[in-house]
Amino acid sequence: MNFSDEEYKSRLGKVKAAMAARQAETLVISDPSNMHWLTGYDGWSFYVHQGLIVALDLDEPIWWGRGMDGNGAKLTTYLRADGIRPYADDYVQNPLKHPMSFVADILREKGLGKKRLFAESDNYWFSAKCASTLADELGTPPGDATGLVNWCRLVKSPQEIAYLRQASKVCVNVMDTAVASIRPGQPERAAAAAVYRACVMGPAGTPGDHPAIFPIMPSNERTTCAHLGWDPERDYREGDLVLLELCGVHKRYHCPLSRTVFLGKPPDRLRHISEAVLEGVAKVLEFIKPGVTAERVEEKWRDVIKSYGVVKPSRLGYSIGASYVPDWGERTVSLRPGDKTVLAPNMAFHLMPGIWEDDLGFESSEPFLVTESGCEPLTRYPRGILTP
Amino acid sequence: MNFSDEEYKSRLGKVKAAMAARQAETLVISDPSNMHWLTGYDGWSFYVHQGLIVALDLDEPIWWGRGMDGNGAKLTTYLRADGIRPYADDYVQNPLKHPMSFVADILREKGLGKKRLFAESDNYWFSAKCASTLADELGTPPGDATGLVNWCRLVKSPQEIAYLRQASKVCVNVMDTAVASIRPGQPERAAAAAVYRACVMGPAGTPGDHPAIFPIMPSNERTTCAHLGWDPERDYREGDLVLLELCGVHKRYHCPLSRTVFLGKPPDRLRHISEAVLEGVAKVLEFIKPGVTAERVEEKWRDVIKSYGVVKPSRLGYSIGASYVPDWGERTVSLRPGDKTVLAPNMAFHLMPGIWEDDLGFESSEPFLVTESGCEPLTRYPRGILTP
Repeated sequence: MNFSDEEYKSRLGKVKAAMAARQAETLVISDPSNMHWLTGYDGWSFYVHQGLIVALDLDEPIWWGRGMDGNGAKLTTYLRADGIRPYADDYVQNPLKHPMSFVADILREKGLGKKRLFAESDNYWFSAKCASTLADELGTPPGDATGLVNWCRLVKSPQEIAYLRQASKVCVNVMDTAVASIRPGQPERAAAAAVYRACVMGPAGTPGDHPAIFPIMPSNERTTCAHLGWDPERDYREGDLVLLELCGVHKRYHCPLSRTVFLGKPPDRLRHISEAVLEGVAKVLEFIKPGVTAERVEEKWRDVIKSYGVVKPSRLGYSIGASYVPDWGERTVSLRPGDKTVLAPNMAFHLMPGIWEDDLGFESSEPFLVTESGCEPLTRYPRGILTP
Repeated sequence: MNFSDEEYKSRLGKVKAAMAARQAETLVISDPSNMHWLTGYDGWSFYVHQGLIVALDLDEPIWWGRGMDGNGAKLTTYLRADGIRPYADDYVQNPLKHPMSFVADILREKGLGKKRLFAESDNYWFSAKCASTLADELGTPPGDATGLVNWCRLVKSPQEIAYLRQASKVCVNVMDTAVASIRPGQPERAAAAAVYRACVMGPAGTPGDHPAIFPIMPSNERTTCAHLGWDPERDYREGDLVLLELCGVHKRYHCPLSRTVFLGKPPDRLRHISEAVLEGVAKVLEFIKPGVTAERVEEKWRDVIKSYGVVKPSRLGYSIGASYVPDWGERTVSLRPGDKTVLAPNMAFHLMPGIWEDDLGFESSEPFLVTESGCEPLTRYPRGILTP
């Protein structure tokens, strides 16, 4: 296991306390990152319905999932064998039979059928059909506990921070690899392939892992938006603009990082945006300390870039931690107007001031930890336009 | 675009006909592979809510999604600019504001607010909260059109088959790469890294792409279940058993393939299972032709392996096509009891007879096309235990 028994117990305690505060007696968890954080479960089986049941009345979570994944739960979680409940294969992608009926059976068997049930209504994988099946089975729809577990994950433990620091080593190696691969005449896909390789391999002594988001590395007009990959059929050319939003991963903890590469002399507009963003990032990192709110961080940023005539309508960043596809964000705090979360030591964020204009984009981000007195960037990577 | 205007038009026509047959007047589509198949949309933006609206009353689909992804929709779809509707960033991961309210606004604006609305209730990304928000906005919950678009994708066009054949070339190169990387003393993660690289790069002349499932390549006790990856900290040793469930991808079309590697002399039980599976696969491929049902294919298989004392409680295979994480399956036909789908020319399947026992596993699969008179495996890869 990646964490001590005590750490898993403490996590379960936090979740139960949050449940009690919401008058939730039973919780169905389907978000793979929440499953992993609570039990260690680690497999690519989330493409079918699976999850945990956490109940105030039960001392351990119950894992439920597809039959062929039950041995995976035995190998990767701390759960007792009788806490692992595999379902028959005909529950898979079958309009006549839904896995939530199996979950309802477990709830009834454990005497939890009439308890106040909540579910992660807007987390990954909890479909509309999951909710309606539970409602049909139990007579009442589950309450909404979207993000309940995610919020429990916000402040990181020393071991989690150690993994984030390892992930940052993987990340720097990934970024170095990407920048070195972007050369006129080289296929874009060769750079993407090298990035995947570096992310999974990691530098000497620090194993990497599979990324929760693919290498976002568009060129030229594709840099005008946020989530395009490389062009599988194109070679880089002199004069190319390339955005890189990449990550390093270690034991599922993600350290993301964005940078911008230009093959030649960058155009004036790009340099202007770069200056704005770099000043904004520097000022924001100076500003952050325990006690400031998420929205004040964004306000600080906005004040800086306003004077440059640069606009960023999207959030400035988000909390990070352990994750699986499709997202390395923790889906709790957003650095944006209206988010009044108070920053505290050992929270981790990706400060992601991506600018996507209608003819070009620029990205230079910083993953950081909140410390006792301020904040600490997780990488020391040059922030300006990279012109290899 | 990867397909002609005519092909996209024909796809939309199929979907509208399926909608009409279900008395659906409007359909909200959130499954990324369905979005891609209908419009070409191709970005890693599905970690926030996005989708299409298809209405019998509208001549083209409407793409809706996050503001920063609107330019991506312009670049990767055939849609007119006014068919691309980006939402403000504060709809992202905000408990106070849900993107389905934005979708309801579009429906009302287009005069579709009172039409019979359906959604992909159990497809990816359509959360319980999506359904309840639409119900609150429009006064009635959406009907269930799970898999409606997926079923329209079942019979492949000539261009799709051409892409599947290219994907099979990528796949063979991926498998060769994996087998060559599994050697005593080599890190498991180095093999995984090489697999990712081969999948994205592709062999000379055939670009690959990012895979919808990570390289499933467990060793030893981890082979007792279906969906574990490599061990990031372990080196292979003499006597290792390694399962490989990998794929090749070309223009999002996936050709999956599973094989089993043993570093040394395979144990008797493994050889016995291998014999059973290989005879089963051969007999099934001989048996398949247009007109047979999915359940009859599985029955044929079961008859063969029964005589070996080998049991496979899970489905024998599934339809394949274009896909995104977390699954390369098309989520329609399953080769299993009760599935009465009649096989027809130009359907594509992954025949996946994985056997996971409590102390070891064995995999040897075959992707195939149904032809006019039988079926055609997409690869010619040796099926037995590979002992490099």
